[in-house]
Amino acid sequence: MKILKGNVTTPRGFTGGAICCSIKPTNTRRTDLGIIYSEVPCTAAGIFTTNKVQAAPVKLTRKHLANGRAQAVAANSYVANTCTPDGDETALAMAEAAADALGLETADIIVASTGVIGRSLPVDAVKDGIATLAPQLHVDGGDAVAKAIMTTDTVDKQAAIQCTLGGKTCTIGVVAKGSGMIDIQMGTMLAFTTTDAAISASMLDAALRTAAETTFNMVCVDGDMSTNDTLTIMANGLAGNTEIREKNADWQTFVDALTVLYTEMAKALAADGEGATKLVMATVSGAVSEKDARIAAKSIIRSDLVKTALFGSDANWGRILCAIGYSGAAMDPETVEVSFSSEAGDITVCQAGRAVPVDEDRATAILDTKAVTIRVCLGEGPGKATAYGCDLSYDYVKINGDYRS
Amino acid sequence: MKILKGNVTTPRGFTGGAICCSIKPTNTRRTDLGIIYSEVPCTAAGIFTTNKVQAAPVKLTRKHLANGRAQAVAANSYVANTCTPDGDETALAMAEAAADALGLETADIIVASTGVIGRSLPVDAVKDGIATLAPQLHVDGGDAVAKAIMTTDTVDKQAAIQCTLGGKTCTIGVVAKGSGMIDIQMGTMLAFTTTDAAISASMLDAALRTAAETTFNMVCVDGDMSTNDTLTIMANGLAGNTEIREKNADWQTFVDALTVLYTEMAKALAADGEGATKLVMATVSGAVSEKDARIAAKSIIRSDLVKTALFGSDANWGRILCAIGYSGAAMDPETVEVSFSSEAGDITVCQAGRAVPVDEDRATAILDTKAVTIRVCLGEGPGKATAYGCDLSYDYVKINGDYRS
Repeated sequence: MKILKGNVTTPRGFTGGAICCSIKPTNTRRTDLGIIYSEVPCTAAGIFTTNKVQAAPVKLTRKHLANGRAQAVAANSYVANTCTPDGDETALAMAEAAADALGLETADIIVASTGVIGRSLPVDAVKDGIATLAPQLHVDGGDAVAKAIMTTDTVDKQAAIQCTLGGKTCTIGVVAKGSGMIDIQMGTMLAFTTTDAAISASMLDAALRTAAETTFNMVCVDGDMSTNDTLTIMANGLAGNTEIREKNADWQTFVDALTVLYTEMAKALAADGEGATKLVMATVSGAVSEKDARIAAKSIIRSDLVKTALFGSDANWGRILCAIGYSGAAMDPETVEVSFSSEAGDITVCQAGRAVPVDEDRATAILDTKAVTIRVCLGEGPGKATAYGCDLSYDYVKINGDYRS
Repeated sequence: MKILKGNVTTPRGFTGGAICCSIKPTNTRRTDLGIIYSEVPCTAAGIFTTNKVQAAPVKLTRKHLANGRAQAVAANSYVANTCTPDGDETALAMAEAAADALGLETADIIVASTGVIGRSLPVDAVKDGIATLAPQLHVDGGDAVAKAIMTTDTVDKQAAIQCTLGGKTCTIGVVAKGSGMIDIQMGTMLAFTTTDAAISASMLDAALRTAAETTFNMVCVDGDMSTNDTLTIMANGLAGNTEIREKNADWQTFVDALTVLYTEMAKALAADGEGATKLVMATVSGAVSEKDARIAAKSIIRSDLVKTALFGSDANWGRILCAIGYSGAAMDPETVEVSFSSEAGDITVCQAGRAVPVDEDRATAILDTKAVTIRVCLGEGPGKATAYGCDLSYDYVKINGDYRS
């Protein structure tokens, strides 16, 4: 298994590209629409927000993916196409424009939007943009897609990985955008995956759900679950491996590769959370079950008090115990151990639910780094899990006190 | 029913006072221990944090109140007496010291602590403080208690109310402290109530739970439920009313008065949330049930994205719909109406789940005030509820990035 510098156009047979079609204010000169295209039909699967308020493109794409196939993605940023009078029409118009321009069926288009809720998409500009962009797609275009879907992201998120399936080298690529309105369960707004592996639609769906469970579904920036969250995967089979049709060794290899790739994305999304100064990982072990470990890890990573303490590089472990205590996870306060680790070292601050005398300067040095792991051991149980998040800084407030205008 | 300027020593027969016993750094010269005392035994009831990590005084006081009686409160700030090796001993020593000094049984003492988790109480200083303070308690001492229990609070919280029970004027008084680590369900760290009404322990308990449900249990500052949350009430019967022993008209009058009093406290706690620049109330109506209304109102008030938008006086209603959508409350996005109101006016920003054209300057003027109500109508249902919270400002981050040290 090998992590590559790459993205959605790294697997064989995929092209992509982006364009500026004036959804973002024109003076920003930033691209705001991207297309990913496979030269052959793909099996496909998706996971979507469970928010009851759902963007029009989420509703449409869920319908399009019901048959387990797709061949292209069209995604825009800046406007979420949610809670608008013409949302369903414009989402459909976007899919139809992409289908026309690429010579595909409308039902084979994945559409997605991210941005401000309640604003309408400038549908003519989007249609023109798609018509102009479609003939220009190319095999190095994945990077442009990663950039076009950014909103308050400060860096693009893209990666690829290779694994061997039935003797053939298969590649998986992904682009994602995140930053704000991110909670556990689809902790992302948009992520698109491509692969040249041959895998049936149902096995692809199962692989997607399995890999997302411990990665995208364990990311939290601010506890707000977006109305637009969309994670998709398209597999075009051009790697030439024997199609994966059951949960065999190849399926497991594919899931493992996808999990490694998505873990990278989860960390990237968390580290670039709005206003974040550091990546925070909460690893809980010794829980009575994996479910309890997940609940505890998520609660730690979501706590504003834990997040602000980490922003201040303050080893305030009491807030961590507090967050576990109200999480609902099974736990005995008398057996909890808490430590912090980073490239600067490792320090245990709480044992058996009680303070351990610590050198506060050393603790601060460990926390004053770009990536901190909070390690919690709840007891003797087999359950373990990791959640991905970030600290809560002045800039989160700044960004969100004035994002819309 | 009449709201009074008053507090826990306003009802007949209660005295109080506070002292500086060096739990807080001595250079702050701030009081850190308060006592409330009734000259006669009281029926009593309490509600406590449901966090699995519980402060030693919470565990002790729950035990002491099991018999439905108490006669005094001893409470300290700055150190939470949670997750310390000697927590149970020091909580008991605090109760014993108060019992000795006041000539009461230890089991009749309510003890409570608030402050940093993981630090031990300086038990000798606390015992000396109690011994010195006890002989000095007086009928104007409630104000001093309100101040002694403050941590990051910027203003003290105290109020009283009068109602007529069986022809007798009864008074209820309360002091509370809040500010941070405050979530729905016991949205407070400490609140102590006194009354001269005559009411049986079981009716007092029922009244306390009923009144808390729509008040303290609907306050959220940061979504972190404290390990020390304690709300108690003591009733000494000196008003001379016929003792309330069943849910009769007098009981309802008492509950109504208590609810009005606690609503004032809920607003005061929310308005003084850490770093808050404004009180935010979320009123949800038209829900299919009261429970759904509460779930939706709580989700709005907890959302960091809603809170930061309000800090920026940005009428970003999409975030409100988003927060309702992921709350779990039954809702139809197509029937939601959202408006904002304050002393500066009233403006509807969303109807039938869609944007309404609004004058953004006017919206900003309405939001740029000290108290804003978010009014949401979900549909035609009978359920309604109000939650109390605040905005999320730079100062929340500042306070909590460096609270402990």
